[in-house]
Amino acid sequence: MCISDQPITEAYLAYQKELVDAGLLIPSGVKGVYGRSGLFEKVVDQFEAFATRMGADANAEVMRFPPIFGRHTYMQTDHVETMPDLMGSVNSFCGNEKEHRALIAKIEEKDENWCKDLTPTDVMLVPAACYPLYPTASGSVLPEGGRTVDLKTFVFRHEPSDDPARMQIFRQREYVRLGTPEQALQHRNHWLQTAEGMHKELGLEVEVVVANDPFFGRGGRVMKATQREQELKFEIVTPICSEEKPTAITSCNCHLDHFGHSFNIKTADGEPAHTSCIGFGLERIALALFKTHGLDPSRWPEKVRKTLQWT
Amino acid sequence: MCISDQPITEAYLAYQKELVDAGLLIPSGVKGVYGRSGLFEKVVDQFEAFATRMGADANAEVMRFPPIFGRHTYMQTDHVETMPDLMGSVNSFCGNEKEHRALIAKIEEKDENWCKDLTPTDVMLVPAACYPLYPTASGSVLPEGGRTVDLKTFVFRHEPSDDPARMQIFRQREYVRLGTPEQALQHRNHWLQTAEGMHKELGLEVEVVVANDPFFGRGGRVMKATQREQELKFEIVTPICSEEKPTAITSCNCHLDHFGHSFNIKTADGEPAHTSCIGFGLERIALALFKTHGLDPSRWPEKVRKTLQWT
Repeated sequence: MCISDQPITEAYLAYQKELVDAGLLIPSGVKGVYGRSGLFEKVVDQFEAFATRMGADANAEVMRFPPIFGRHTYMQTDHVETMPDLMGSVNSFCGNEKEHRALIAKIEEKDENWCKDLTPTDVMLVPAACYPLYPTASGSVLPEGGRTVDLKTFVFRHEPSDDPARMQIFRQREYVRLGTPEQALQHRNHWLQTAEGMHKELGLEVEVVVANDPFFGRGGRVMKATQREQELKFEIVTPICSEEKPTAITSCNCHLDHFGHSFNIKTADGEPAHTSCIGFGLERIALALFKTHGLDPSRWPEKVRKTLQWT
Repeated sequence: MCISDQPITEAYLAYQKELVDAGLLIPSGVKGVYGRSGLFEKVVDQFEAFATRMGADANAEVMRFPPIFGRHTYMQTDHVETMPDLMGSVNSFCGNEKEHRALIAKIEEKDENWCKDLTPTDVMLVPAACYPLYPTASGSVLPEGGRTVDLKTFVFRHEPSDDPARMQIFRQREYVRLGTPEQALQHRNHWLQTAEGMHKELGLEVEVVVANDPFFGRGGRVMKATQREQELKFEIVTPICSEEKPTAITSCNCHLDHFGHSFNIKTADGEPAHTSCIGFGLERIALALFKTHGLDPSRWPEKVRKTLQWT
């Protein structure tokens, strides 16, 4: 930790303590892993219903993927190249009884390496809500109007943090568009504007900025520069624990034909499909609302309660 | 596969195909890992709301834990001894840029062992919805009336299967009681009867049986016998793909002071707390309903639709 990080760490821990004291977050003993109270979940649910109302015109296909997906699908993305430090590989015990006795002996001897004897399974934790979608469209030709899909899942990022808004596991609610370059870009632009308005209606002080993804290593620094230059991904940020380091609560990303290529998805005219998405960070939005309006939603401003249809 | 398993595997694959063709389940390319459609989720939601109404009297504390929890908590349970083959350990890449280049080189050479270079993180996948609860009560003394907690989470079981009702990741909705031996036993008994009635009201042909958990190895065979003998855990089973091998869709379990001991939870009079739980297997209940009443809920019997408040 740099000395300059000290005040922000204090701000993280102070807000974390407030949330835990109010019973909204339940600590697990692991940084960035919390249980949520019923009240916290109600804020998430009401926000989600708001997003559903705002997206109703698109008649999106609803798909709900679980928090794990195929390792072979993971390998079709470039995640292991660009963000390997965030990945979650699922390993299990696949041995016989003798090997099991050896494993237990290691554990009894407090040998921290016991988990090295586990075997990688066929699954990984999902790093972004739209990843499990693409293989289901693999080899397909999209209808003329393209497709719009409504997704939500828990995503994993291995980045233990004191910042209550930087969880290792959290929910993304997404609308993904698959179609022509124009359809994909229009979707991103439409949602960037819509989401900005939604957050303002909820009384959040938001700003739209070009995204700043945490790509890994030297190659990552190049990708970061390209991402900024191409202006493909935007984030809606708001101060949660810090004015200087505001938190991205929602993002709108145009992937060009990146996934269309990797997963062989074509448009009606035979070109690789373009894709784009909006992703709402549900826990972060709830945390921003609690920070802005206080920890008791029954006392939130009338306008905010009305927008959330809070009863 | 034994020859005698052939017909049941065919039954599994046939129902799986029906569900996939109807769009209710979305295959991921990995056995036992599926996306769910909006309609499938609606059945889950309506059943859950039914369970909430039936549990309303208990004024349970609502807690929602994510699908991962602390490795240190996992190690406080006996899961690695009793069901190691079902566990999910989460590993990630914790190296530097040079090690990352070596990892990528392995992947490019199609070296299947690339994931052996990953490092175990501080988290594991949750094997049962109530596991993340106990450490949060660790060191506490319960109030006189005990506590009742309403839980739901995704749980992981590493058991790839053709049976659509045996998923590697699925949701459990639980009511857990922490209290005196009498409070815990009364909770289990109350819910066993209540849940049996709920399933019958939904038109499911259910039976209550002593549980038959898949404990591992030789030690496991002893535990299996003890579990049956003590009659602590009961399952509500219903035929989904097979009359001979009905599926457990709900279970009611009294843990005696097992978790009270392991996590140092005490009753008001200073004794180790007893715990018990009911767990509804949400995906399995939905699959049983689809199997019994057909794949289109708009055509389910009036009584079932009324019970589920289907609109």
